[in-house]
Amino acid sequence: MDADRPEHTEHTEHTEQGTYTVPGQEYSRDSRYLTTRITADGRDGYPVEPGRYRLVAARACPWANRAIIVRRLLGLEGVLSMGLAGPTHDERSWTFDLDPGGRDPVLGIERLRDAYLARDPHYPRGITVPAVVDVTSGAVVTNDFAQITLDLELEWTAHHRPGAPDLYPEHLRTEIDQVNRRVYAKVNNGVYRCGFAGDQGAYEAAYRSLWDGLDWLEERLSGQRYLVGETITEADVRLFTTLVRFDAVYHGHFKCNRNRLTEMPALWAYARDLFQTPGFGDTVDFAQIKEHYYVVHRDINPTGIVPLGPDLSGWVAAHGRERLGGRPFGDGTPPGPVPDGERVDPGHTPLG
Amino acid sequence: MDADRPEHTEHTEHTEQGTYTVPGQEYSRDSRYLTTRITADGRDGYPVEPGRYRLVAARACPWANRAIIVRRLLGLEGVLSMGLAGPTHDERSWTFDLDPGGRDPVLGIERLRDAYLARDPHYPRGITVPAVVDVTSGAVVTNDFAQITLDLELEWTAHHRPGAPDLYPEHLRTEIDQVNRRVYAKVNNGVYRCGFAGDQGAYEAAYRSLWDGLDWLEERLSGQRYLVGETITEADVRLFTTLVRFDAVYHGHFKCNRNRLTEMPALWAYARDLFQTPGFGDTVDFAQIKEHYYVVHRDINPTGIVPLGPDLSGWVAAHGRERLGGRPFGDGTPPGPVPDGERVDPGHTPLG
Repeated sequence: MDADRPEHTEHTEHTEQGTYTVPGQEYSRDSRYLTTRITADGRDGYPVEPGRYRLVAARACPWANRAIIVRRLLGLEGVLSMGLAGPTHDERSWTFDLDPGGRDPVLGIERLRDAYLARDPHYPRGITVPAVVDVTSGAVVTNDFAQITLDLELEWTAHHRPGAPDLYPEHLRTEIDQVNRRVYAKVNNGVYRCGFAGDQGAYEAAYRSLWDGLDWLEERLSGQRYLVGETITEADVRLFTTLVRFDAVYHGHFKCNRNRLTEMPALWAYARDLFQTPGFGDTVDFAQIKEHYYVVHRDINPTGIVPLGPDLSGWVAAHGRERLGGRPFGDGTPPGPVPDGERVDPGHTPLG
Repeated sequence: MDADRPEHTEHTEHTEQGTYTVPGQEYSRDSRYLTTRITADGRDGYPVEPGRYRLVAARACPWANRAIIVRRLLGLEGVLSMGLAGPTHDERSWTFDLDPGGRDPVLGIERLRDAYLARDPHYPRGITVPAVVDVTSGAVVTNDFAQITLDLELEWTAHHRPGAPDLYPEHLRTEIDQVNRRVYAKVNNGVYRCGFAGDQGAYEAAYRSLWDGLDWLEERLSGQRYLVGETITEADVRLFTTLVRFDAVYHGHFKCNRNRLTEMPALWAYARDLFQTPGFGDTVDFAQIKEHYYVVHRDINPTGIVPLGPDLSGWVAAHGRERLGGRPFGDGTPPGPVPDGERVDPGHTPLG
């Protein structure tokens, strides 16, 4: 499964705190991950097992947001617990500063880094979310974000809730993979290539690629409710977590400013439709999203000031996408209410 | 005439190149100007005289844009020449880098600073545009931007073109002054107070004041075509030069991002109406505007990368404001075509 793999994987270390751009260079994501998998058959030594693993995420992060959404859509909350890092970093990356005592209550650590070092005392790469940690050892099993959601969908089926949707239906996988590849290169990672471009030329190439991708999506979604097939799939999850951050962060902070999402009629209605679907918008914390990007990336926002905008009220306005047909959960059902302790701060979302 | 005077005039020196924010402080504009006036009676020693003075402006600058617009609306091009500094600064401020040889062809100088030093060899404050220079001495007469346009309107009347509008009609002056004071504090200077805020609190106060002002304008302009009276006035000129920069610069770069201008129906239609009125949009160079802000303010945009957006095509779309009545030029007429040598690069404007 290489849908999320960029074409080149050249390593760019960000050793200086808050430094994400390299003058004169295009942005290149380090996409070497811990690729150990948690599977039903346990072939990598990590079998699916209720209560054994902890998903460490951060509401700020679009890659982690995918896993938060999928876990909830599939009803895995009872078997796979979730720890949430706060929106900002210190120089050693994600911390559990939102938890009482600044410590994850299950893993007992202050920094996600400790779980990476438990896996490899010389772990050389970025401390990223999402990460799935083996609670018994305290070590990260995988941070391979593209594989994590697929494995939740395909390997954890024995623990899916009744009525869980099939987010990666077998007969649509080829098309989903194709869409995902294009969305990753041009949109999911494309916004970062705009924002972290080290010179004008790299920025302009990234911007043109991004809008080429968004124009293609605008056209595709003008005639169909979801990206692939008649129901929500993995493809929608992946696009959604970028779109929901678009006007709040990418438009200004990353200079993705040809248009706001609100000016793209089909994409904006599509994004609102998903936002209002249980399992999507109820995972989104706009305050944490904005704080993360504007505070952490000091090299593109030296003051660390977090914008008060944009107005978010449009996210809960009618979207009118029902006329395109489609059934979000197919023959399944929406997830129930968000469990206690996992609700987004009502002040941080237009869902209230 | 104090419509454009901020309430406090505390001095903030920006001696370090590209430094506009002061950590922990709100932004405070240095509003001590050279207030010598060019008048019909010459009481300050500088009588109105065709050919004697040169308006030095920069298309990038909203304060200078006011003077460019008023000069053109009144048809003063033949009696008051214009020099244009390029969009970016070096450490000694505005330069004539767009002119052949990097030298203003009339003043013969490379830097506007030289004209300030000709006035005062120890000139201690910022080198600002607009400035009106006495060509005979090469010295700046005034850089008091708020007074410059009023004097063009009231002191240069003998040289106005036939059909020139009355931009500051006597019976409306009290109301125009009141509107200008509010627009200056909340909007014209308000966007700078957002963008150059030195901490979160100063930014948030400025943002709330800005949107309070814009909401008030949105309501006012929902029922009337122009800000004061039935025709274009000085009040419209002053608001226009901020609105035309809003989505291109202030929304993202200055974090004025509750809404884009395009999301404020009355303000957006009003701004388009003016943009399409001869004398307004034909003075606007979006490329120079963007280059100025994004390149010069390195402390808020360290990479110096200039965004490719926003899409500008909407500026030439129908505005529908005719239904509100009003006659842009009253009993007068629009200005003729832009003189040769003063046209905006067709690639830098949606007017083409």
